[in-house]
Amino acid sequence: MRPVTMTPIGIFHTDSKQIPRHWAISDVKGDIVIDEKYKDGLKDIQTGQKIIVIFHFHQSPPFESCHLIQKPWHREKEMGVFSICSPLRPNPIGLSVLKVLEVKGNVVSVVHADMVDGTPVLDIKPYTPGDFKE
Amino acid sequence: MRPVTMTPIGIFHTDSKQIPRHWAISDVKGDIVIDEKYKDGLKDIQTGQKIIVIFHFHQSPPFESCHLIQKPWHREKEMGVFSICSPLRPNPIGLSVLKVLEVKGNVVSVVHADMVDGTPVLDIKPYTPGDFKE
Repeated sequence: MRPVTMTPIGIFHTDSKQIPRHWAISDVKGDIVIDEKYKDGLKDIQTGQKIIVIFHFHQSPPFESCHLIQKPWHREKEMGVFSICSPLRPNPIGLSVLKVLEVKGNVVSVVHADMVDGTPVLDIKPYTPGDFKE
Repeated sequence: MRPVTMTPIGIFHTDSKQIPRHWAISDVKGDIVIDEKYKDGLKDIQTGQKIIVIFHFHQSPPFESCHLIQKPWHREKEMGVFSICSPLRPNPIGLSVLKVLEVKGNVVSVVHADMVDGTPVLDIKPYTPGDFKE
């Protein structure tokens, strides 16, 4: 497989030291500081809407075969890595759905974060609830 | 920003030549053929469930500043790249929610695909509809 190299579009900053394991249970606030050269791409992101944030689990140790099956923190049984949200995965990509509090210049302030301070952000996508059905 | 290098976990294959622009409007079927070394990580992926597939828009040309604002195919006005699903983005990462038809060995058969044949897949995550609310 041919490797793919990406450069983060920005960095997430938060003062919070207690980061929940999942955005669905988080009230953590923070700022995504986007590289100035991508600032114009933030046009149309509005206060109150939700966005999908794709990020790099930059603190994850290298993936090893013993991580293919893991016991999630909130479950009783071990599960395959592609059925859980563990940061320990073949490609350490994270996904969160965050609510936008404000967009000011190149800074997107958000709530519901499950990223630690300093997390590199790879992409922001629109969240269209109508598409996410049962 | 420090570059991040990822290696695809598998490749998506489909016979379909007509690929819709979005998974929410697609009935395209195909197979995600996972690298044999990650096969055990597919444990717990079940027929009928939905999964989040993160993939590489491998056919996208290099991103340029003129792509920061684009007119989506289904909209009247130009929008910021982070508010649309265009494959032309700073990091060419795609996201689809697909329904699992079958898991057999290292092959995950799916429907609702919006990936072209040969698309490198970077990650598979569980889709938990309860988390994706308004």
